[in-house]
Amino acid sequence: MTQLLPRLFLPRSFLSPPSIQFRTFTCSTALQKKSNRNPKMATVTTKTGQSVDRLVLDSMLRRRMFYTPSFEIYGGVSGLYDYGPPGTALVANMTDLWRKHFVLEEDMLEVDCTMLTPHDILKTSGHVDKFADWMCKDPKTGEIFRADHLVEEVLESRLKGDKEARGQKVEVDAEKEAKKKKKSKGEAKAVKLDDALVKEYEETLAQIDNFDGPALEKLIEKYDIRNPATDGKVEPPVAFNLMFQTSIGPSSNMPGYLRPETAQGQFLNFAKLLEFNQQGMPFASASIGKSFRNEISPRAGLLRVREFLMAEIEHYVDPEGGKKHPRFVEVKDVELSLLDRNVQLSGSTKTTKMTIGQAVETGLVDNETLGYFLARIQSFLLKLGIDYNKLRFRQHMANEMAHYAADCWDAELQTSYGWIECVGCADRSAYDLNVHKNKTGAPLVVRETRSEPLRIEEWQVDLEKKKFGPRFKKDAKTVEAAIDALSQELREKLALDLEQQGKIEVEIEGVGSGKVEIEKDLIKIEKRTRVENVREYTPNVIEPSFGIGRIMYSMIEHVYWSRAGDEARGVLSFPPSIAPTKVLLVPLSTNAAFKPLTQNLSAKLRRLGISSRVDDSSASIGKRYARNDELGTPFGITVDFQSVKDETITLRDRDTTKQVRASEDEILQAVKSLVDGDETWADIVKRLPEFTGQEIE
Amino acid sequence: MTQLLPRLFLPRSFLSPPSIQFRTFTCSTALQKKSNRNPKMATVTTKTGQSVDRLVLDSMLRRRMFYTPSFEIYGGVSGLYDYGPPGTALVANMTDLWRKHFVLEEDMLEVDCTMLTPHDILKTSGHVDKFADWMCKDPKTGEIFRADHLVEEVLESRLKGDKEARGQKVEVDAEKEAKKKKKSKGEAKAVKLDDALVKEYEETLAQIDNFDGPALEKLIEKYDIRNPATDGKVEPPVAFNLMFQTSIGPSSNMPGYLRPETAQGQFLNFAKLLEFNQQGMPFASASIGKSFRNEISPRAGLLRVREFLMAEIEHYVDPEGGKKHPRFVEVKDVELSLLDRNVQLSGSTKTTKMTIGQAVETGLVDNETLGYFLARIQSFLLKLGIDYNKLRFRQHMANEMAHYAADCWDAELQTSYGWIECVGCADRSAYDLNVHKNKTGAPLVVRETRSEPLRIEEWQVDLEKKKFGPRFKKDAKTVEAAIDALSQELREKLALDLEQQGKIEVEIEGVGSGKVEIEKDLIKIEKRTRVENVREYTPNVIEPSFGIGRIMYSMIEHVYWSRAGDEARGVLSFPPSIAPTKVLLVPLSTNAAFKPLTQNLSAKLRRLGISSRVDDSSASIGKRYARNDELGTPFGITVDFQSVKDETITLRDRDTTKQVRASEDEILQAVKSLVDGDETWADIVKRLPEFTGQEIE
Repeated sequence: MTQLLPRLFLPRSFLSPPSIQFRTFTCSTALQKKSNRNPKMATVTTKTGQSVDRLVLDSMLRRRMFYTPSFEIYGGVSGLYDYGPPGTALVANMTDLWRKHFVLEEDMLEVDCTMLTPHDILKTSGHVDKFADWMCKDPKTGEIFRADHLVEEVLESRLKGDKEARGQKVEVDAEKEAKKKKKSKGEAKAVKLDDALVKEYEETLAQIDNFDGPALEKLIEKYDIRNPATDGKVEPPVAFNLMFQTSIGPSSNMPGYLRPETAQGQFLNFAKLLEFNQQGMPFASASIGKSFRNEISPRAGLLRVREFLMAEIEHYVDPEGGKKHPRFVEVKDVELSLLDRNVQLSGSTKTTKMTIGQAVETGLVDNETLGYFLARIQSFLLKLGIDYNKLRFRQHMANEMAHYAADCWDAELQTSYGWIECVGCADRSAYDLNVHKNKTGAPLVVRETRSEPLRIEEWQVDLEKKKFGPRFKKDAKTVEAAIDALSQELREKLALDLEQQGKIEVEIEGVGSGKVEIEKDLIKIEKRTRVENVREYTPNVIEPSFGIGRIMYSMIEHVYWSRAGDEARGVLSFPPSIAPTKVLLVPLSTNAAFKPLTQNLSAKLRRLGISSRVDDSSASIGKRYARNDELGTPFGITVDFQSVKDETITLRDRDTTKQVRASEDEILQAVKSLVDGDETWADIVKRLPEFTGQEIE
Repeated sequence: MTQLLPRLFLPRSFLSPPSIQFRTFTCSTALQKKSNRNPKMATVTTKTGQSVDRLVLDSMLRRRMFYTPSFEIYGGVSGLYDYGPPGTALVANMTDLWRKHFVLEEDMLEVDCTMLTPHDILKTSGHVDKFADWMCKDPKTGEIFRADHLVEEVLESRLKGDKEARGQKVEVDAEKEAKKKKKSKGEAKAVKLDDALVKEYEETLAQIDNFDGPALEKLIEKYDIRNPATDGKVEPPVAFNLMFQTSIGPSSNMPGYLRPETAQGQFLNFAKLLEFNQQGMPFASASIGKSFRNEISPRAGLLRVREFLMAEIEHYVDPEGGKKHPRFVEVKDVELSLLDRNVQLSGSTKTTKMTIGQAVETGLVDNETLGYFLARIQSFLLKLGIDYNKLRFRQHMANEMAHYAADCWDAELQTSYGWIECVGCADRSAYDLNVHKNKTGAPLVVRETRSEPLRIEEWQVDLEKKKFGPRFKKDAKTVEAAIDALSQELREKLALDLEQQGKIEVEIEGVGSGKVEIEKDLIKIEKRTRVENVREYTPNVIEPSFGIGRIMYSMIEHVYWSRAGDEARGVLSFPPSIAPTKVLLVPLSTNAAFKPLTQNLSAKLRRLGISSRVDDSSASIGKRYARNDELGTPFGITVDFQSVKDETITLRDRDTTKQVRASEDEILQAVKSLVDGDETWADIVKRLPEFTGQEIE
């Protein structure tokens, strides 16, 4: 769900909510959303107070192969990226932490379901009918636009032209300008607009996410919106399903899709997982895997891609008893930045700091289980290196949530693209299990023995079935079923009729005149007590859902800064446990005497389970360290002539560039302790002697 | 590549090799292959000497949710399986070991490329044209058969009927019989066949993998092979491409596929990876990820599926200098079971035990790098728990390999399905980089400074270009290019002509009469020495490619056995490092006094990074342990009333069912040491006191 929300699922207060609202595809308030959806840069500063220059950062990430456009030598495909070695290692470390933090910590049942999914499942879940965006086509050029993006681009361009005509300063976005260079006719012309029209445009842009297809069509007509490149008219918006379609097997009679989320596979396995868990409730399943969305025109780099890694949890809880969580007490004092729906309704984005205990107690967060996961999500993000000040939990608006959802909060991270939805956490009630249960008849329910049997007084009906055949012939079954379906109220009334008149009259469509008389020798209606020993219920689902790629990108922005005085000297301050490589091994020069030492260190680190890389290139030590600052390697070990003599080596800290010198054993023990998080660099400098020798800044 | 080879890529000695042979899709010799492709059970025995009953094992694996058919509540889809909690954990532990054993150990560059792949890439690689199986259709019922499977099934059924008619004992395969029950007309009829025909059928079956589409068509006609269920005629075989097709983006002009292997993404990133590696050679890239094959009619459970996990390595090596490997010396004494191509040609499957050092020295294995990986593959498989006696390396036949391949060996594992190809290891020469380089012009090459400049004596041509325009007008460029392309031999001859006649005559198509005269004031041809400082070459690729699902299934068969005297008491003896869960925590009874102890133990194990599960159900201790033997949990800790008094606990070993009793700290330390592989159970029983109390067998 952590891809931004497709438009069809974006009912907002501006429009009446559609009849079907959907799973966790969510959005921010219009203003925030706008900043999300635009590649325009928002001003964000690093922890050291510099403003994040996305172009510089992005070029560094590509140069160091954190990621790279897929199939680039064939011209590339938008929305598809490969991760290079540091990106792959980063994702592996993130998912490893996720497993420890969630799956192992809470004994979750991790599953791995197929991505290929037959049509019927996604028809039931609603994706086949509703998982779509609006697109429109320029019939002359064949170009296809996402309808809201097109309206947005054209109106923004006109507003810019208006500002120019009024002699106002126009904010220039380097990326956007670069992209526009290719286009000609669409260039903003300095044309002054009516004051009233400017206001209309601005209002439209502020709520661009609120328009569905027909509404977008009206906007396109009203404002004569055309293909910016050719000035050609575009066709009316049509819905485009965002799932990749394929066909399973050799005949074409099994259409299938690539899953748009991992959740469905988990729901379908509910009964088996409950059995695996020996009927124990509550429990959670979890899954890490790729999902797919065929975006119309992906932009915003790693934030909106067509193939992405998700980590999802489906926590099943008894809907009765207030959805308490046994470990809530462990997190109740955790403070979160909350942006609740009332604040958003008032047009503000001001967050409130509050403990999750308070939030649940006051009813702001619906229940303990949901609250527990919000706190756990926060602690996971902080472990990754997310900046607490750039994290907020935004509550969904009432009409933004699905009708069945009890409550929903997104963890949003602030980046140069604005506030980005990175984790969703929704209480989805019993919806998902119910739709699959209703479709297939599979018992996606919990049956538990009641500690006290439940005694229910009710009107029960006994039929003299042997007489039903002769009496009603072919209609016998229909009559029986109709009687079986009678409500308690009707039964009570009919019992009285039977007693008083010796017969009853029941309305049964399709049988005779539609009214059927039944005499008392065929039927008995009595009030009796039924004892129920087993309780059967459909559990509710709390669903924390993580977009790993989005979290990774946001996290990179949060840990990125540049060394004072030189913008080009970027540093990625990943926490040691998350960093792609933990140690850089640097021989002072290419002198052959160093080789056995670095090889030996490399082997020893491997045995400790610590990843390292040797850089024995002829570049200066300073340059080699600068390269690895960009890769976010937290520690560096230098081998020099002194090392050959006395086996001492130096250890450098990426963030402070300070070094200590000690014996090989002491340094390796320090590295282990730093990577495991048992000590910090501050601890190390206290106990090992500082070294100021070969480091060249 | 670890799916069994699609038929189109199965040229065998029986048929002439096709013009295009393909990547690593390989097969075994006909006889072995046949056993692979049939779900019929081969007789294999467990380490404890029992014969493996696949039906019993499979039912246990499903009951314990190692795997389960995907979408089962919707009726399921053949060839698609979900992994439940133990299966998912097993795969995670296997890939974790793979990363440590290969990627970390050799500083490989791990990448994560997209599964969605545009058409052009797979057109270049050959998959679009050649990655197919033969299928035929029953036009009446619409049923589709894999052509070779159909021929096989019908002929086998006739042979069975013949045996019955001759009064011979017919081997019954329970699984096959169960499947056949649905069918009626196809049932083997007791019809005696001609002796000559029996021989023909048997010979055909023995080489069923050798037939391509036209050959299968002839067989179908000759033997009047029909739909076994309806006795209806089938249409001639047509090629069916095994890739799942889809469309990328909103217009239909970008057809794409789900990748059939992870290798292509790695090849396309070669230049960037070389740059990332600071131009260092040799180096390897690696990738773990899902691939897809749209099998016509998947059978054989987890061994032939439509979506599967692969782990592939592309090791790039300089083709000059004999493809030495710097670490070959570390593995040269490792002994492998080799089944070389000459032995196979002689019709035998007898393996030879030989050190890899010998095998490379004698030329049996082509080079050190290939040999190094064969040894490393073996040590990986043994760490997983693979039985050394059920592992062999089979060399590809000359006509089974692609024409460009230098050598290719498969690691095959023996299972109840026969010998299964689980890892391929091929020397693919420079083929892959070359086809993409030729298609895109991207420099997928290595450029290295020569330690000694290369001096080349050659005939060089100087043109008086200023005079070329006036002399040849519009043809000037064509003439220049033609001269530039002249071979050294021709240049030598022309130099002589020029000296003797003052002019030369060159054949140039499309210019004048096709013969062009050039006078000596326009051209000079001299023998000179050129100095080349940089060497440019396309590296060769050694490709070890692992089918994780196949290895997992085979490994499960290798570690499976039953407790003496009771076939139903299955045990999976996973090595502790691979086992899905390491420790089962068992309170003696549901007494509340035990709860804080188990909770505390659980938290302590978690902190040690050891996965555990509590079973506090009311089942007997014996039953709870039996359940966990089936899950392959290597250790059990029991908490009893003694524990409440003195904090001692007992530790049980899955394989011996022996127990020791000691303090909590001692037991936890022992578990850590066992899981890390520092000690074995034999070491533990030597130093901790045995306990024979509550264990109920």
